[in-house]
Amino acid sequence: MAKQDRAVRTRTALIESAAALFDSEGYELASLSTISERAGVSSGALHFHFTSKAALAEAVGQAAVQRLEGITRPQVDDALQALIDVTHALVRALDDDVVLRAGFGLSDSIERVRVAAGLRDKWQGWVEDSLGQADREGALASEGAAQDAATALVAVTAGLETLGRQDEWWLSHAPLTRFWQLILPRLAEPSRLDVLVASGSKGGAPGL
Amino acid sequence: MAKQDRAVRTRTALIESAAALFDSEGYELASLSTISERAGVSSGALHFHFTSKAALAEAVGQAAVQRLEGITRPQVDDALQALIDVTHALVRALDDDVVLRAGFGLSDSIERVRVAAGLRDKWQGWVEDSLGQADREGALASEGAAQDAATALVAVTAGLETLGRQDEWWLSHAPLTRFWQLILPRLAEPSRLDVLVASGSKGGAPGL
Repeated sequence: MAKQDRAVRTRTALIESAAALFDSEGYELASLSTISERAGVSSGALHFHFTSKAALAEAVGQAAVQRLEGITRPQVDDALQALIDVTHALVRALDDDVVLRAGFGLSDSIERVRVAAGLRDKWQGWVEDSLGQADREGALASEGAAQDAATALVAVTAGLETLGRQDEWWLSHAPLTRFWQLILPRLAEPSRLDVLVASGSKGGAPGL
Repeated sequence: MAKQDRAVRTRTALIESAAALFDSEGYELASLSTISERAGVSSGALHFHFTSKAALAEAVGQAAVQRLEGITRPQVDDALQALIDVTHALVRALDDDVVLRAGFGLSDSIERVRVAAGLRDKWQGWVEDSLGQADREGALASEGAAQDAATALVAVTAGLETLGRQDEWWLSHAPLTRFWQLILPRLAEPSRLDVLVASGSKGGAPGL
Protein backbone atom coordinates (compact mmCIF):
# COMPACT_ATOMS: atom_id res chain seq x y z
CA MET A 1 0.00 0.00 0.00
CA ALA A 2 1.31 3.47 -0.81
CA LYS A 3 2.20 5.56 2.21
CA GLN A 4 -0.54 8.08 1.45
CA ASP A 5 -3.24 5.40 1.10
CA ARG A 6 -2.28 4.04 4.48
CA ALA A 7 -2.46 7.50 6.04
CA VAL A 8 -5.96 8.00 4.64
CA ARG A 9 -7.08 4.60 5.92
CA THR A 10 -5.65 5.26 9.38
CA ARG A 11 -7.35 8.62 9.54
CA THR A 12 -10.67 7.11 8.46
CA ALA A 13 -10.37 4.29 11.02
CA LEU A 14 -9.72 6.83 13.77
CA ILE A 15 -12.73 8.92 12.77
CA GLU A 16 -15.00 5.84 12.74
CA SER A 17 -13.63 4.67 16.08
CA ALA A 18 -14.04 8.13 17.64
CA ALA A 19 -17.58 8.45 16.28
CA ALA A 20 -18.56 5.06 17.76
CA LEU A 21 -17.15 5.97 21.16
CA PHE A 22 -18.60 9.52 21.19
CA ASP A 23 -21.95 7.96 20.33
CA SER A 24 -21.91 5.25 22.98
CA GLU A 25 -20.02 6.93 25.83
CA GLY A 26 -20.46 10.60 25.09
CA TYR A 27 -17.70 13.00 24.08
CA GLU A 28 -16.51 13.71 27.62
CA LEU A 29 -15.95 10.10 28.64
CA ALA A 30 -14.40 8.94 25.37
CA SER A 31 -10.67 8.44 25.89
CA LEU A 32 -8.07 8.84 23.15
CA SER A 33 -6.40 5.57 24.18
CA THR A 34 -9.64 3.60 23.69
CA ILE A 35 -10.23 5.34 20.34
CA SER A 36 -6.77 4.41 19.03
CA GLU A 37 -6.95 0.89 20.46
CA ARG A 38 -10.32 0.15 18.84
CA ALA A 39 -9.10 1.60 15.55
CA GLY A 40 -6.12 -0.78 15.71
CA VAL A 41 -3.79 2.20 15.59
CA SER A 42 -0.93 3.20 17.88
CA SER A 43 -1.29 6.13 20.20
CA GLY A 44 1.56 7.83 18.32
CA ALA A 45 -0.31 7.48 15.02
CA LEU A 46 -3.40 9.03 16.57
CA HIS A 47 -1.43 12.03 17.73
CA PHE A 48 0.19 12.35 14.31
CA HIS A 49 -3.28 12.75 12.76
CA PHE A 50 -5.13 14.56 15.52
CA THR A 51 -3.62 16.91 18.08
CA SER A 52 -6.54 16.64 20.52
CA LYS A 53 -9.92 15.06 21.18
CA ALA A 54 -11.51 18.29 19.98
CA ALA A 55 -9.68 17.91 16.65
CA LEU A 56 -11.07 14.38 16.34
CA ALA A 57 -14.58 15.66 17.12
CA GLU A 58 -14.12 18.32 14.44
CA ALA A 59 -13.14 15.59 11.94
CA VAL A 60 -16.17 13.49 12.93
CA GLY A 61 -18.34 16.57 12.37
CA GLN A 62 -16.84 17.16 8.91
CA ALA A 63 -17.30 13.50 7.98
CA ALA A 64 -20.93 13.72 9.13
CA VAL A 65 -21.47 16.77 6.91
CA GLN A 66 -20.15 14.73 3.95
CA ARG A 67 -22.53 11.87 4.78
CA LEU A 68 -25.41 14.33 4.94
CA GLU A 69 -24.42 15.75 1.55
CA GLY A 70 -24.50 12.21 0.15
CA ILE A 71 -27.99 11.65 1.54
CA THR A 72 -29.41 14.95 0.30
CA ARG A 73 -28.54 14.19 -3.32
CA PRO A 74 -32.06 13.49 -4.57
CA GLN A 75 -32.69 10.60 -6.97
CA VAL A 76 -36.04 11.69 -8.41
CA ASP A 77 -37.08 14.81 -10.32
CA ASP A 78 -40.20 15.63 -8.29
CA ALA A 79 -38.91 17.92 -5.50
CA LEU A 80 -41.62 16.98 -3.00
CA GLN A 81 -41.18 13.22 -3.50
CA ALA A 82 -37.41 13.74 -3.30
CA LEU A 83 -37.90 15.48 0.05
CA ILE A 84 -39.99 12.57 1.34
CA ASP A 85 -37.40 10.06 0.10
CA VAL A 86 -34.46 11.96 1.59
CA THR A 87 -36.10 12.24 5.02
CA HIS A 88 -36.53 8.45 5.02
CA ALA A 89 -32.89 8.03 3.94
CA LEU A 90 -31.75 10.39 6.70
CA VAL A 91 -33.66 8.54 9.41
CA ARG A 92 -32.36 5.18 8.17
CA ALA A 93 -28.82 6.60 8.17
CA LEU A 94 -29.30 7.83 11.76
CA ASP A 95 -29.94 4.18 12.63
CA ASP A 96 -27.09 2.70 10.54
CA ASP A 97 -24.35 5.29 10.31
CA VAL A 98 -22.53 5.98 13.55
CA VAL A 99 -20.58 8.89 12.03
CA LEU A 100 -23.75 10.74 11.09
CA ARG A 101 -25.36 9.98 14.46
CA ALA A 102 -22.27 11.09 16.36
CA GLY A 103 -22.11 14.25 14.25
CA PHE A 104 -25.65 15.22 15.23
CA GLY A 105 -24.94 14.22 18.83
CA LEU A 106 -21.84 16.45 18.94
CA SER A 107 -23.80 19.33 17.46
CA ASP A 108 -26.11 19.18 20.51
CA SER A 109 -23.32 19.35 23.08
CA ILE A 110 -23.60 22.64 24.86
CA GLU A 111 -20.55 24.85 25.38
CA ARG A 112 -18.26 21.86 25.18
CA VAL A 113 -17.99 20.90 21.56
CA ARG A 114 -19.09 23.46 19.04
CA VAL A 115 -17.97 21.45 16.05
CA ALA A 116 -20.51 20.09 13.66
CA ALA A 117 -22.85 22.88 14.71
CA GLY A 118 -23.34 23.44 10.99
CA LEU A 119 -24.91 20.01 10.50
CA ARG A 120 -28.41 20.97 11.63
CA ASP A 121 -28.25 24.27 9.74
CA LYS A 122 -27.31 22.44 6.56
CA TRP A 123 -30.21 20.04 6.99
CA GLN A 124 -32.65 22.87 7.66
CA GLY A 125 -31.35 24.81 4.66
CA TRP A 126 -31.76 21.79 2.41
CA VAL A 127 -35.34 21.18 3.62
CA GLU A 128 -36.25 24.82 2.96
CA ASP A 129 -34.62 24.79 -0.50
CA SER A 130 -36.48 21.60 -1.41
CA LEU A 131 -39.82 23.07 -0.41
CA GLY A 132 -38.96 26.22 -2.38
CA GLN A 133 -38.26 24.05 -5.42
CA ALA A 134 -41.52 22.12 -4.88
CA ASP A 135 -43.32 25.47 -4.75
CA ARG A 136 -41.76 26.54 -8.09
CA GLU A 137 -42.91 23.20 -9.54
CA GLY A 138 -46.49 24.10 -8.53
CA ALA A 139 -46.57 21.07 -6.23
CA LEU A 140 -47.65 22.84 -3.04
CA ALA A 141 -51.12 23.66 -1.79
CA SER A 142 -50.00 27.01 -0.34
CA GLU A 143 -46.85 28.94 0.49
CA GLY A 144 -47.78 29.16 4.18
CA ALA A 145 -48.02 25.40 4.42
CA ALA A 146 -44.45 25.14 3.09
CA GLN A 147 -43.04 27.30 5.89
CA ASP A 148 -45.00 25.41 8.53
CA ALA A 149 -43.88 22.10 7.02
CA ALA A 150 -40.19 23.11 6.98
CA THR A 151 -40.29 23.92 10.70
CA ALA A 152 -42.21 20.73 11.50
CA LEU A 153 -39.87 18.57 9.42
CA VAL A 154 -36.72 19.88 11.09
CA ALA A 155 -38.30 19.33 14.51
CA VAL A 156 -39.62 15.86 13.65
CA THR A 157 -36.30 14.58 12.30
CA ALA A 158 -34.47 15.92 15.37
CA GLY A 159 -37.10 14.23 17.54
CA LEU A 160 -36.82 10.86 15.78
CA GLU A 161 -33.04 11.06 16.24
CA THR A 162 -33.42 11.76 19.98
CA LEU A 163 -36.11 9.13 20.57
CA GLY A 164 -34.23 6.60 18.42
CA ARG A 165 -31.33 6.61 20.87
CA GLN A 166 -33.52 4.74 23.34
CA ASP A 167 -35.90 2.92 21.01
CA GLU A 168 -34.96 2.07 17.43
CA TRP A 169 -38.61 1.89 16.35
CA TRP A 170 -38.50 5.67 16.01
CA LEU A 171 -35.84 5.27 13.29
CA SER A 172 -37.91 2.77 11.33
CA HIS A 173 -40.11 3.78 8.38
CA ALA A 174 -43.34 3.71 10.38
CA PRO A 175 -43.27 6.95 12.40
CA LEU A 176 -41.93 9.09 9.55
CA THR A 177 -44.50 7.59 7.15
CA ARG A 178 -47.25 8.51 9.63
CA PHE A 179 -45.95 12.06 9.73
CA TRP A 180 -45.98 12.35 5.93
CA GLN A 181 -49.47 10.80 5.77
CA LEU A 182 -50.61 13.43 8.19
CA ILE A 183 -49.15 16.48 6.49
CA LEU A 184 -49.16 15.64 2.77
CA PRO A 185 -52.87 16.47 2.27
CA ARG A 186 -52.10 19.89 3.78
CA LEU A 187 -48.84 20.43 1.96
CA ALA A 188 -49.28 19.04 -1.53
CA GLU A 189 -51.32 20.43 -4.40
CA PRO A 190 -54.41 18.11 -4.38
CA SER A 191 -53.81 16.61 -7.85
CA ARG A 192 -50.38 15.39 -6.68
CA LEU A 193 -51.68 13.38 -3.74
CA ASP A 194 -52.32 10.22 -5.74
CA VAL A 195 -48.74 9.93 -6.97
CA LEU A 196 -46.82 10.91 -3.83
CA VAL A 197 -45.62 7.98 -1.70
CA ALA A 198 -45.50 8.84 2.01
CA SER A 199 -43.33 5.82 2.80
CA GLY A 200 -40.75 6.81 0.15
CA SER A 201 -40.61 6.00 -3.56
CA LYS A 202 -38.70 2.95 -4.78
CA GLY A 203 -36.23 4.84 -6.88
CA GLY A 204 -36.12 7.69 -4.42
CA ALA A 205 -33.25 6.72 -2.21
CA PRO A 206 -30.79 3.85 -2.33
CA GLY A 207 -32.08 0.83 -0.42
CA LEU A 208 -35.72 1.87 -0.13
CA MET B 1 -37.84 26.18 61.09
CA ALA B 2 -38.85 22.68 62.11
CA LYS B 3 -36.22 20.03 61.53
CA GLN B 4 -38.34 18.26 58.95
CA ASP B 5 -39.00 21.46 56.96
CA ARG B 6 -35.29 22.12 56.80
CA ALA B 7 -34.66 18.57 55.55
CA VAL B 8 -37.23 19.01 52.79
CA ARG B 9 -35.72 22.35 51.77
CA THR B 10 -32.21 20.92 51.70
CA ARG B 11 -33.33 17.98 49.61
CA THR B 12 -35.14 20.30 47.17
CA ALA B 13 -32.10 22.59 46.91
CA LEU B 14 -29.89 19.59 46.12
CA ILE B 15 -32.27 18.34 43.43
CA GLU B 16 -32.42 21.80 41.80
CA SER B 17 -28.65 22.16 41.96
CA ALA B 18 -28.08 18.68 40.52
CA ALA B 19 -30.59 19.30 37.73
CA ALA B 20 -28.87 22.56 36.79
CA LEU B 21 -25.45 20.91 36.68
CA PHE B 22 -26.65 17.77 34.82
CA ASP B 23 -28.26 20.10 32.30
CA SER B 24 -25.24 22.35 31.75
CA GLU B 25 -22.34 19.92 32.17
CA GLY B 26 -23.92 16.56 31.54
CA TYR B 27 -24.42 13.82 34.10
CA GLU B 28 -20.91 12.38 33.77
CA LEU B 29 -19.04 15.62 34.41
CA ALA B 30 -21.27 16.87 37.20
CA SER B 31 -19.43 16.50 40.52
CA LEU B 32 -21.14 15.97 43.86
CA SER B 33 -18.95 18.64 45.46
CA THR B 34 -20.10 21.29 42.96
CA ILE B 35 -23.72 20.20 43.42
CA SER B 36 -23.56 20.57 47.21
CA GLU B 37 -21.58 23.82 47.01
CA ARG B 38 -24.06 25.47 44.61
CA ALA B 39 -26.96 24.27 46.75
CA GLY B 40 -25.33 25.94 49.76
CA VAL B 41 -25.24 22.60 51.53
CA SER B 42 -22.38 20.73 53.15
CA SER B 43 -20.97 17.63 51.54
CA GLY B 44 -22.08 15.65 54.62
CA ALA B 45 -25.66 16.84 54.19
CA LEU B 46 -25.62 15.78 50.56
CA HIS B 47 -24.50 12.28 51.51
CA PHE B 48 -27.15 12.16 54.23
CA HIS B 49 -29.84 12.70 51.59
CA PHE B 50 -28.32 10.92 48.60
CA THR B 51 -25.95 7.98 48.70
CA SER B 52 -24.66 8.48 45.15
CA LYS B 53 -24.85 10.62 42.03
CA ALA B 54 -27.17 7.99 40.54
CA ALA B 55 -29.53 8.46 43.50
CA LEU B 56 -29.55 12.21 42.85
CA ALA B 57 -30.29 11.59 39.17
CA GLU B 58 -33.14 9.30 40.19
CA ALA B 59 -34.54 12.08 42.41
CA VAL B 60 -34.23 14.60 39.56
CA GLY B 61 -36.12 12.15 37.34
CA GLN B 62 -38.90 11.76 39.91
CA ALA B 63 -39.16 15.53 40.36
CA ALA B 64 -39.38 15.91 36.57
CA VAL B 65 -42.24 13.39 36.47
CA GLN B 66 -44.08 15.51 39.06
CA ARG B 67 -43.52 18.66 36.98
CA LEU B 68 -44.86 16.84 33.93
CA GLU B 69 -47.93 15.74 35.89
CA GLY B 70 -48.52 19.38 36.85
CA ILE B 71 -48.31 20.45 33.20
CA THR B 72 -50.62 17.73 31.91
CA ARG B 73 -53.48 18.79 34.17
CA PRO B 74 -55.69 20.38 31.49
CA GLN B 75 -57.49 23.66 32.21
CA VAL B 76 -60.18 23.51 29.52
CA ASP B 77 -62.93 20.97 28.85
CA ASP B 78 -62.30 20.54 25.12
CA ALA B 79 -59.78 17.65 24.93
CA LEU B 80 -58.21 18.77 21.65
CA GLN B 81 -57.76 22.37 22.78
CA ALA B 82 -56.39 21.06 26.08
CA LEU B 83 -53.83 19.02 24.14
CA ILE B 84 -52.77 22.08 22.16
CA ASP B 85 -52.50 24.14 25.36
CA VAL B 86 -50.53 21.49 27.22
CA THR B 87 -48.00 21.08 24.39
CA HIS B 88 -47.37 24.83 24.54
CA ALA B 89 -47.03 24.64 28.34
CA LEU B 90 -44.58 21.72 28.02
CA VAL B 91 -42.39 23.52 25.53
CA ARG B 92 -42.37 26.68 27.66
CA ALA B 93 -41.46 24.57 30.70
CA LEU B 94 -38.60 22.98 28.75
CA ASP B 95 -37.27 26.51 28.35
CA ASP B 96 -37.89 27.65 31.96
CA ASP B 97 -37.70 24.60 34.18
CA VAL B 98 -34.26 23.09 34.55
CA VAL B 99 -35.59 20.09 36.50
CA LEU B 100 -37.91 19.09 33.68
CA ARG B 101 -35.21 19.68 31.05
CA ALA B 102 -32.65 17.70 33.03
CA GLY B 103 -35.20 14.91 33.50
CA PHE B 104 -35.69 14.57 29.75
CA GLY B 105 -31.93 14.86 29.21
CA LEU B 106 -31.25 12.06 31.69
CA SER B 107 -33.86 9.88 30.04
CA ASP B 108 -31.82 10.06 26.81
CA SER B 109 -28.55 8.95 28.40
CA ILE B 110 -27.75 5.53 27.07
CA GLU B 111 -26.62 2.73 29.38
CA ARG B 112 -25.43 5.21 31.96
CA VAL B 113 -28.47 6.59 33.64
CA ARG B 114 -31.70 4.71 33.24
CA VAL B 115 -33.64 6.88 35.63
CA ALA B 116 -36.42 9.03 34.38
CA ALA B 117 -36.81 6.66 31.46
CA GLY B 118 -40.50 6.73 32.25
CA LEU B 119 -40.77 10.45 31.52
CA ARG B 120 -41.13 10.08 27.74
CA ASP B 121 -43.49 7.12 28.12
CA LYS B 122 -45.70 9.15 30.43
CA TRP B 123 -45.81 12.00 27.96
CA GLN B 124 -46.59 9.70 25.06
CA GLY B 125 -49.32 7.96 27.09
CA TRP B 126 -50.88 11.29 27.98
CA VAL B 127 -50.87 12.46 24.35
CA GLU B 128 -52.54 9.23 23.24
CA ASP B 129 -55.15 9.40 26.01
CA SER B 130 -55.98 13.01 25.11
CA LEU B 131 -56.49 12.13 21.47
CA GLY B 132 -58.67 9.18 22.54
CA GLN B 133 -60.75 11.58 24.63
CA ALA B 134 -60.98 14.05 21.72
CA ASP B 135 -62.15 11.17 19.52
CA ARG B 136 -64.91 10.27 22.02
CA GLU B 137 -65.94 13.94 22.00
CA GLY B 138 -66.41 13.68 18.22
CA ALA B 139 -63.70 16.29 17.74
CA LEU B 140 -61.50 14.36 15.30
CA ALA B 141 -61.70 14.12 11.54
CA SER B 142 -60.71 10.43 11.55
CA GLU B 143 -59.26 7.80 13.86
CA GLY B 144 -56.25 7.23 11.58
CA ALA B 145 -55.33 10.89 11.83
CA ALA B 146 -55.28 10.60 15.63
CA GLN B 147 -52.69 7.82 15.58
CA ASP B 148 -50.53 9.69 13.05
CA ALA B 149 -50.86 12.86 15.12
CA ALA B 150 -49.84 11.12 18.37
CA THR B 151 -46.64 9.84 16.78
CA ALA B 152 -45.91 13.19 15.17
CA LEU B 153 -46.57 15.11 18.40
CA VAL B 154 -44.24 12.95 20.49
CA ALA B 155 -41.53 13.32 17.83
CA VAL B 156 -42.05 17.07 17.43
CA THR B 157 -41.89 17.81 21.16
CA ALA B 158 -38.72 15.69 21.50
CA GLY B 159 -37.27 17.58 18.53
CA LEU B 160 -38.11 21.02 19.93
CA GLU B 161 -36.42 19.99 23.19
CA THR B 162 -33.27 18.84 21.35
CA LEU B 163 -33.10 21.87 19.04
CA GLY B 164 -33.91 24.23 21.93
CA ARG B 165 -30.68 23.27 23.68
CA GLN B 166 -28.77 25.18 21.00
CA ASP B 167 -31.32 27.77 19.94
CA GLU B 168 -34.12 28.91 22.26
CA TRP B 169 -36.31 30.00 19.34
CA TRP B 170 -37.37 26.36 19.04
CA LEU B 171 -38.88 26.59 22.54
CA SER B 172 -40.86 29.74 21.72
CA HIS B 173 -44.52 29.61 20.66
CA ALA B 174 -43.77 30.06 16.95
CA PRO B 175 -42.56 26.62 15.82
CA LEU B 176 -45.18 24.69 17.80
CA THR B 177 -47.93 27.00 16.55
CA ARG B 178 -46.77 26.35 12.98
CA PHE B 179 -46.98 22.62 13.63
CA TRP B 180 -50.54 22.89 14.96
CA GLN B 181 -51.56 25.13 12.04
CA LEU B 182 -50.26 22.47 9.72
CA ILE B 183 -51.97 19.47 11.27
CA LEU B 184 -55.21 20.81 12.76
CA PRO B 185 -57.09 20.85 9.44
CA ARG B 186 -56.15 17.16 9.10
CA LEU B 187 -56.84 16.22 12.68
CA ALA B 188 -59.90 18.16 13.77
CA GLU B 189 -63.50 17.65 12.77
CA PRO B 190 -64.05 20.51 10.25
CA SER B 191 -66.71 22.34 12.30
CA ARG B 192 -64.23 22.65 15.19
CA LEU B 193 -61.57 24.43 13.19
CA ASP B 194 -62.96 27.90 13.79
CA VAL B 195 -62.83 27.62 17.56
CA LEU B 196 -59.48 25.83 18.03
CA VAL B 197 -56.53 28.11 18.76
CA ALA B 198 -53.25 26.73 17.37
CA SER B 199 -51.17 29.10 19.49
CA GLY B 200 -52.92 27.98 22.70
CA SER B 201 -56.11 29.26 24.32
CA LYS B 202 -55.97 32.00 26.96
CA GLY B 203 -57.49 29.91 29.73
CA GLY B 204 -55.75 26.81 28.52
CA ALA B 205 -52.53 26.91 30.45
CA PRO B 206 -51.23 29.24 33.12
CA GLY B 207 -49.32 32.14 31.61
CA LEU B 208 -50.48 31.80 28.03
